[in-house]
Amino acid sequence: MKIKKLNAVSFKNSTITGGFWKERQDIFRKTTIDAVYKRFEETGRFEALKFNWKEGMPFKPHIFWESDDTKWIEGAAFFLQKQRDAELEIKIDELISWMAKTQDKNGYLNAYFTVVEPEARFTRRMDHELYCAGHLIEAAIAYAEATGKKEMLQIAIRYADLIDRIFRIEHSAAFDTPGHEEIELALVKLYYYTGEKRYLDLAKYFIDTRGNSKKDITYEFADMEYVQSHLPVRDQTTAVGHSVRALYLYAAMADLAMETEDEELLSACKALYANITKKRMYITGGVGSTYRGEAFTFDYDLPEYTAYSETCASIALAMFCRRMWQMDVDGKYSDCAEQAIYNTVLGGVSLSGDRFFYENPLSVDPRRNAFNEFRTEEMKEHLPILERVKVFECSCCPPNLLRIVGSIADYMYSTDEETIYTHCYMEADTELEVNGQKVILEQRTQYPYDGNICINIRSDGVFGIALRIPGWCKKAKVYVNQKERKLELHKGYVYLKENWKSGDEIVLKLPMEIKTYRANPQVVSACGRVAVMRGPIVYCAEGLDNEDKPLKDICLLQEKEAQLVEVNIANLKMPGICMPAIYTMNFEELYCDGEVEKKEMVLNMIPYFAWANRGISEMTTWFLK
Amino acid sequence: MKIKKLNAVSFKNSTITGGFWKERQDIFRKTTIDAVYKRFEETGRFEALKFNWKEGMPFKPHIFWESDDTKWIEGAAFFLQKQRDAELEIKIDELISWMAKTQDKNGYLNAYFTVVEPEARFTRRMDHELYCAGHLIEAAIAYAEATGKKEMLQIAIRYADLIDRIFRIEHSAAFDTPGHEEIELALVKLYYYTGEKRYLDLAKYFIDTRGNSKKDITYEFADMEYVQSHLPVRDQTTAVGHSVRALYLYAAMADLAMETEDEELLSACKALYANITKKRMYITGGVGSTYRGEAFTFDYDLPEYTAYSETCASIALAMFCRRMWQMDVDGKYSDCAEQAIYNTVLGGVSLSGDRFFYENPLSVDPRRNAFNEFRTEEMKEHLPILERVKVFECSCCPPNLLRIVGSIADYMYSTDEETIYTHCYMEADTELEVNGQKVILEQRTQYPYDGNICINIRSDGVFGIALRIPGWCKKAKVYVNQKERKLELHKGYVYLKENWKSGDEIVLKLPMEIKTYRANPQVVSACGRVAVMRGPIVYCAEGLDNEDKPLKDICLLQEKEAQLVEVNIANLKMPGICMPAIYTMNFEELYCDGEVEKKEMVLNMIPYFAWANRGISEMTTWFLK
Repeated sequence: MKIKKLNAVSFKNSTITGGFWKERQDIFRKTTIDAVYKRFEETGRFEALKFNWKEGMPFKPHIFWESDDTKWIEGAAFFLQKQRDAELEIKIDELISWMAKTQDKNGYLNAYFTVVEPEARFTRRMDHELYCAGHLIEAAIAYAEATGKKEMLQIAIRYADLIDRIFRIEHSAAFDTPGHEEIELALVKLYYYTGEKRYLDLAKYFIDTRGNSKKDITYEFADMEYVQSHLPVRDQTTAVGHSVRALYLYAAMADLAMETEDEELLSACKALYANITKKRMYITGGVGSTYRGEAFTFDYDLPEYTAYSETCASIALAMFCRRMWQMDVDGKYSDCAEQAIYNTVLGGVSLSGDRFFYENPLSVDPRRNAFNEFRTEEMKEHLPILERVKVFECSCCPPNLLRIVGSIADYMYSTDEETIYTHCYMEADTELEVNGQKVILEQRTQYPYDGNICINIRSDGVFGIALRIPGWCKKAKVYVNQKERKLELHKGYVYLKENWKSGDEIVLKLPMEIKTYRANPQVVSACGRVAVMRGPIVYCAEGLDNEDKPLKDICLLQEKEAQLVEVNIANLKMPGICMPAIYTMNFEELYCDGEVEKKEMVLNMIPYFAWANRGISEMTTWFLK
Repeated sequence: MKIKKLNAVSFKNSTITGGFWKERQDIFRKTTIDAVYKRFEETGRFEALKFNWKEGMPFKPHIFWESDDTKWIEGAAFFLQKQRDAELEIKIDELISWMAKTQDKNGYLNAYFTVVEPEARFTRRMDHELYCAGHLIEAAIAYAEATGKKEMLQIAIRYADLIDRIFRIEHSAAFDTPGHEEIELALVKLYYYTGEKRYLDLAKYFIDTRGNSKKDITYEFADMEYVQSHLPVRDQTTAVGHSVRALYLYAAMADLAMETEDEELLSACKALYANITKKRMYITGGVGSTYRGEAFTFDYDLPEYTAYSETCASIALAMFCRRMWQMDVDGKYSDCAEQAIYNTVLGGVSLSGDRFFYENPLSVDPRRNAFNEFRTEEMKEHLPILERVKVFECSCCPPNLLRIVGSIADYMYSTDEETIYTHCYMEADTELEVNGQKVILEQRTQYPYDGNICINIRSDGVFGIALRIPGWCKKAKVYVNQKERKLELHKGYVYLKENWKSGDEIVLKLPMEIKTYRANPQVVSACGRVAVMRGPIVYCAEGLDNEDKPLKDICLLQEKEAQLVEVNIANLKMPGICMPAIYTMNFEELYCDGEVEKKEMVLNMIPYFAWANRGISEMTTWFLK
C-alpha cells in the first residue's frame, strides 16, 4: 500500500490576521525576539560565532551555544518572512558575516571545535556537533526564504557537504550518528529546498545507522536508550530516553517514511506515537517524566510535581504530529499537537514574552521549594522552578518558542491532489494550491477561546475540504453558506466536496464545553482526580485566586455548573473558569477519624499556560472529584 | 510548679507470658538474636572489636560498627534478663574479653580510632565516637543487670570517666558535643545504675552545650539543623534534621528535664512532640520524610512513596514518648508510642525475624523500582527497597529492634506514690511497688488484635490504678470484678482507687472498630484519601491479595461493612480486613472524558507491619474514599 502523502502548506502561505495567534505573534515580534537576543548577547553566545575566544577570555564557547544562536536566527527569520525588519536583519547579517569569515575551507563550522578543541572535530558523539550543524542548516534555509539572502545558506551547504562526505561517504568520523538528533530534520529540509537527493540520503543514513553502529557510544552516565540507540529505529516501539532527542528522531523518521515511502518506518512511528499518547504523555501534552536524563520513564509514570515536561519536548511532539498527519489523516494528531502547543509549549513562556520555563510541572507546592532553597547543595532535590526566568544555562527552549510561534501557521493546512485538509484552527489568510488551482482561504476565529470557525473561500473551483473535528468535540456542526451539513466523520475529519464559488462560507461550530478528564487508573498520581479542559486548553488553579486554600484538597462538584469568566492576566484577556467545589475545613490534628467538615467554595481556574504570571503561588491541574 | 515524676517500671519487673509479644519475643529469641549475630560476624563487625586490623586486611573497621556490636549485646542482654543462655553468653563474654584486652589505660575504647586513625581521637565531631561510647555504656549496664557480670560495665565506666574528663572538665576535645546524639541517654542510665551524679552532669553538659558551642561543626554536606545544633535545645520548637539523632536528643532532653526538674526543657520537649505529632509524623508512627539527610523536612510534608521513616527513628520516637508520659500523664504519648511500635517498628522486621527494612515507605510501586533497577547509577533515584534484607551497610536497625522487642515491657507501667499507671497493654506478669507495697499484676490480653484486657491483681492493698484509654477508642468500658465502672477520663486515663484484694480483676473493654482516618488537608499526598486502622494497627493492601489491581485507584465504600478475617502470613495468624470498594475498569486511553466505568470489589487488607513477607507486590496505606 502506498503511503498517503499530503502536501504541507507552509506558514509562508499564510498570514495570521487576528485572534489568539496574532496577539501572541505581536508579543513575540515586539518582545521575544529582542529579549532572547539580549540574553544571548549578554551571555556571550553570539560572541562565540566570532571564533576568537582564547584561554583566559570570558564566555568560553559551549558545545551547544551555536545552536541557540542559529535557532534564534531561524525564529527571527520566520517573523521576517511575514514582515521584513532592516534593523533585525543587520543583526543577523553581522552574525552571518562572522560565520562566513570563520568557516573552514573544507566547510567545517563550529565554534567550540574551532577555538577550544579543534583537534577533537568529529570525534565525540555526545558533543552536539551535528546538532549544531542541523540548526545552522535550518536557520540558513529560513533566512534565505525570508530575505532572499543566501550567504548563510551557502555556508550551510558547504558544511552539509562536508558532513555528507565524512559520515556517509568516507565513514571517517569517530562515530556514526549524532548523539543529539536534529540534523536529520534539517537535511530533509535542505533536500526539499535544494532538491539535492544526497541530503535525504544522508538523513536516511543517520536514521538507519542509529542502533546499528559499532562506533556509537553514549555518555558515561547514560545508557543507549538515552540516545535512542538501543535498537535499530525500525524496531523501536516505546518512547525512551531524552525526550527532545527522541521526538526529533521520531519526527525525522516520519519525514523519511514519507519521502521514501517506507512503511516499516511509518509503522515504527505509529507505534511510538501510540506509546507516547496512550501511556507516556501528560494531559498538557508534556512528555518526559523525569529530570534524570530529561527522559521518558515507564508506562503510566506521570508524576505531577516532578514532571520534567520540557518546553522543547512538546514543541518536538507537535512537530512529530504534524508530520504524521501528512501520512495518516487522523484528527488525533492535531488533537495531540494542540494539546502540546496550547498547554506546555505556551506555558513555557510568560505572557509578557520575555521569561521562560524549561520544565513544566503539572503542580507545584511552593512550601517544598522554600524548604529546598535553604538546604545545603548536597541535600537539595531537583525541583521545577516556580517563576519563569530570562535565560537558562541550557537555553534551547526560548529560541525554539520563537521558531514555533513564528511558523505556527504551518499547523493549519495540508493538501492532496483534490482536497484541502484543515488541522489546527487559527485566524489567517492563506493562499494554497489544490487540484491545480490557486485557492485563497480566509479563516476567522477566536479559537481556542471559542469554537466558532468561519472559513471564507475567496476562489472558484472544484475541490474538497476536509475539516478536522477535534476529538474533544462531540457536537460539532458544519454550515456551508449558512446551511447545516450532515456530518460524516472519518477519523476525525468531515469531508466536503463542492463546486466552490468565491464568497462561499464554511462555518464550523465546535461547542466548547468545560469537561473533566480522568486518567487511566494506572496513573498513580491522578487516581481519584480529574483535569479540567475546555477545548484544547487545560485549566489549572493557582493559590492566589483561591485564598491559598490547599488546592489538592479541593473537590470539584458538577462541571455542568461551571462558568466561564473573563480574566485578565498580564494585560491579556482570556476565559477563566469558575466551578463549584468543596474543601475540607482545616483542623488542628494531623489525622482525624470519622467525617471531616466540608465547605462549599467556587474554584477559580485559569488556562494552564497562563500560570505563574503573577508571582509565586501553589498551582495544580489535577483535582479531586 | 514541680514536674510530675512517675517511676518507670522496668521490663525487668515483667515477664511476657503470652499473646502478641510472646509470639514476637519467641521469634526474636529463636531467630533474630542469632541472625543478626551471624550477619555481623560475616561482615567483620565483631572482628573489629579485636582491634587487630591492619592496612591490607579485610573488614576495615567502620566508625559506627562498634555501636552495632554493642547494640546487639544490649538487645541480647535484654533477652538474657528473662532467660539465661550459656551459649549466647559465651559469645558475648568473648567480645567483652576482646574489649578488655584492648581498652587503653586511660579508658579509651574505640576500634576505628585505635586501629585506623588513633591520632584522630576526639577530633572529629561527626565520626560517631561518642555515639559508639553511648551504646557501649548501655550494653554494659544491660549485660551486668542480666547476668551480674560486671567486666563490661567496668570497661564502660572507665571510658565514661575519660569522656567526662575530656569533655566536661578539661574541654580538651576538638568539639564539644556529639555529632550523633545517643550518649546522653546512656549517661542518664549510667547515673541511674551507679548513682554517680557526674554522669548526669555530663549528659546535662552535652545537652546544654548543643547549639551553644563554637567548636561544634557538622558534615560539609549538611547544615547545623541536621545535627540539631542550629539553636540551644531549649529554643528548639520544630523537629529538624536527621530524625534518629533528633529523637535520641529529645528523649535525652526529657530524661534530663525529669531528673533536673527543668521546666524550660520540658516545654521544649512538649513543643517538639507537638510539632512531630501534629505536623511531621506518618500515620504509621514513622518520621523522617526524606532520605536526604534521613531527615525531617517541613510541616505536612509526608510523601508516601519516598517516605524515609527509618525503623530506628520510630524506635526513638517510642523512647521519647515513654519518657514524656513520666512527666505528663496523657494518653496521647502511649497512643503515639503504639502507633510507632505496631506499625513502623514492627514493619522493620520480617515476620520470620531475620530480614529487615531500614526505610518504611507507606506505598510502593514495583514498576518504579523495576525501571530504576536498569538505569545507570547516575540516573537512578533513591527508592525504598521492596523486600527486607538480611543486613545493611549501615545496620543500626536490626540490633535496635532486638533492644526494643527484648525490653518491650518497659512500655507497660509506671507508678507514683500511690498509683499504678498502665500505658501500653500486653500480656505479662509484673511485680512492682506502689505506696510502699509490693504488687503483682497479671495482665491477660490479645492486644493489639483484640481490645479486651484483663488485669488480675495478685496482692492486697490500697492504691490507685490509672488505666490508659487509647485515643482511638471512644466506647471503652471498665469492669472491676465484673461490675461496670462509670468512666471519667482525665487526659486519656481512668483512675480507680480501691482497697484491692488479691484476686480482684479489672477488665478493660476497648471495642476495636475498623476506622478510616483523614489526614490534615495540608498533607498533599493524602488529600481525598483515608488510612484504615483498627486499634493501633494501620492496615495496608498488597497487590497480591487484590488481583494486582492498581491499588491507588481503589475507592473504599462503607467501613461499617468491613469485616475481620483471619489471615496467615509466614505462619503467623493475624486479623486481616475485607472492605467493600470500587475500582475503575481499565480503559485503553490515557485520558478519558466523562464518566468511567466502576466495578465493585472487596479490598483485602493486612496489618502494615506484615507487608512484603510474601514477595514483591504493590502496597499502599492511603486509599481513595
